[in-house]
Amino acid sequence: MNFQTAERNIIQEISQTLDGVSPDSINQLIEKIEHADKVFFVGVGRVLLSLEAIAKRLAHLGIKTYVVGQITEPAITSNDLLIVGSGSGESMFPLGIARKAKSFNASIVHIGSNPESTMRQYADLFIRIPVQTKLSQPDEVTSLQPMTSLFEQSLLLLGDSVALMLIEKQNIDMHNLWQFHANLE
Amino acid sequence: MNFQTAERNIIQEISQTLDGVSPDSINQLIEKIEHADKVFFVGVGRVLLSLEAIAKRLAHLGIKTYVVGQITEPAITSNDLLIVGSGSGESMFPLGIARKAKSFNASIVHIGSNPESTMRQYADLFIRIPVQTKLSQPDEVTSLQPMTSLFEQSLLLLGDSVALMLIEKQNIDMHNLWQFHANLE
Amino acid sequence: MNFQTAERNIIQEISQTLDGVSPDSINQLIEKIEHADKVFFVGVGRVLLSLEAIAKRLAHLGIKTYVVGQITEPAITSNDLLIVGSGSGESMFPLGIARKAKSFNASIVHIGSNPESTMRQYADLFIRIPVQTKLSQPDEVTSLQPMTSLFEQSLLLLGDSVALMLIEKQNIDMHNLWQFHANLE
Amino acid sequence: MNFQTAERNIIQEISQTLDGVSPDSINQLIEKIEHADKVFFVGVGRVLLSLEAIAKRLAHLGIKTYVVGQITEPAITSNDLLIVGSGSGESMFPLGIARKAKSFNASIVHIGSNPESTMRQYADLFIRIPVQTKLSQPDEVTSLQPMTSLFEQSLLLLGDSVALMLIEKQNIDMHNLWQFHANLE
Repeated sequence: MNFQTAERNIIQEISQTLDGVSPDSINQLIEKIEHADKVFFVGVGRVLLSLEAIAKRLAHLGIKTYVVGQITEPAITSNDLLIVGSGSGESMFPLGIARKAKSFNASIVHIGSNPESTMRQYADLFIRIPVQTKLSQPDEVTSLQPMTSLFEQSLLLLGDSVALMLIEKQNIDMHNLWQFHANLE
Repeated sequence: MNFQTAERNIIQEISQTLDGVSPDSINQLIEKIEHADKVFFVGVGRVLLSLEAIAKRLAHLGIKTYVVGQITEPAITSNDLLIVGSGSGESMFPLGIARKAKSFNASIVHIGSNPESTMRQYADLFIRIPVQTKLSQPDEVTSLQPMTSLFEQSLLLLGDSVALMLIEKQNIDMHNLWQFHANLE
Repeated sequence: MNFQTAERNIIQEISQTLDGVSPDSINQLIEKIEHADKVFFVGVGRVLLSLEAIAKRLAHLGIKTYVVGQITEPAITSNDLLIVGSGSGESMFPLGIARKAKSFNASIVHIGSNPESTMRQYADLFIRIPVQTKLSQPDEVTSLQPMTSLFEQSLLLLGDSVALMLIEKQNIDMHNLWQFHANLE
Repeated sequence: MNFQTAERNIIQEISQTLDGVSPDSINQLIEKIEHADKVFFVGVGRVLLSLEAIAKRLAHLGIKTYVVGQITEPAITSNDLLIVGSGSGESMFPLGIARKAKSFNASIVHIGSNPESTMRQYADLFIRIPVQTKLSQPDEVTSLQPMTSLFEQSLLLLGDSVALMLIEKQNIDMHNLWQFHANLE
């Protein structure tokens, strides 16, 4: 396989996947982000990396974002939002964190692929990224790629789409974004 | 802007960008990865997150990958490869690491957008992701997105394209990949 | 309180605590480390930071160490050792990881303060750092310090004591240690 | 060497080292911490781990602390403090960050062992941890331990001493500290 075939296949997969995400669920996510005092993110592995990239970009837009487990992490309250990234909705660590966040009455959004997961009981909003899971559904995008790459890639671009929508909605001047950006590196 | 417009714009930008990457430079990168004993990655911010995702996926393919600064990081030698991610090729930390790696005779690949950077003197191979930089060039993809999002997104998908190419080239059975995967989370 | 009073109080607390650790349990830990193919570490918060420092130092002695959750983490096997740091032995994440490691028949050492914890069922060896816990025991060292600082400090120095013992036992030439040390920073 | 000999040796080394730190320099550090809007920390390797532990504890006391390179890092300003940990005062990354922080007129404290380093030109305050360096000085504590373990251990306990002093000085109720503590893990 040459590079052009590889990248075009991947982009085609992501495009088909994101076209299958409910625009209404994204609007609800944006509303929750705008109403939250603080936004926390939890996930593991490459999913966590996508969430960290989203947290970093949203922080540049002036949103107070935190990744669960970071060095200086504040307490979560009922005015806050927890965004969980987990394709299966069955990973131990995100489930445990969601359960705790729920006990503090935080709002919880689950971004995943499996709509019938254990996470369901904790989530106020479920955003489905329709990629292949073990229990396949008719509308799922199949992937040439290894493991859950397609989920992780789609998650990153979903988050960056939200950033783009927030910039337009809030009429943010992109030239001023650097004021919230780390200036030491 | 609604979600569909946002994600389609982003995907269009990435697609145009990756189509502008030299397939030959990717083939050279793959050869270098296959010949290296160990592959190190260095970058900062969201670029680092994309590199970490690439390092994680390549590790699943059986490649020994390390991120500069991780808790247990071995010494680099002349049999190793350092992959630097830096759009501008001017960031202090990657430049300093590249200079040190060069002094140990490691091979160095720079993935960036600016072809005339300080990094040029250290890199054995430069892979250009043709996105907008301060010194614009005629072939650069312009972006609606804030900051260097387009570079970071394209970098992740470039790395995942390399993973897909390696899987086909080495005839790797994707069902066996999990043997190299962390099994504790 | 002036600096000298503060540091002397802290050192006095740590000294009393480490004098209460069973030397025999440390000898067993050293034997387990020497017999393991790979050594994994798990913990949260400042306990994790102490474990990361220990993992880093032991790696310099030529031991293959990994922190659960790091970017490139191999699979654990029955030839490996998991070292859990948890004062209470009740933290969700370490408990979940210990349960999984047990299912792969890895050897498990728990370093904690509470001898009657849920972790007990997973641990092949329990090393007690006798500091104040909620259920106090007669031999516990009380502390002027906030939260679980005394546990975290004692854990770091316990690990560094193990490093010192291994250097002498294995007759390691300290001038050669740098060969295993990251040389890029 | 048995465990008791090892830990007592290490504690003796740390005790002698911290007794050699200037109490006046610590008082100045505390004043700078109390007057800063935000406190940033920078270091590499095990020194960074000690700084992260200090940042975490000070955050529990209500101080706004950040580690350079963390996912969501605000911009530094002239009202902020940068604490650099570097024994030699010659490490590339901390030097580069200190230079940048200086250009934003932030206040800079260097905690190190070598008083004649390149860092000197950036630091408003130098706190000396008198441990063995390559250019030895008559008052330095020699160490049985490998590499710079004694510096890293002393740095952690110096920071925890500062935390203890701040608690007394500001009359902080330790039972209330958990309000600033992450409640999700």
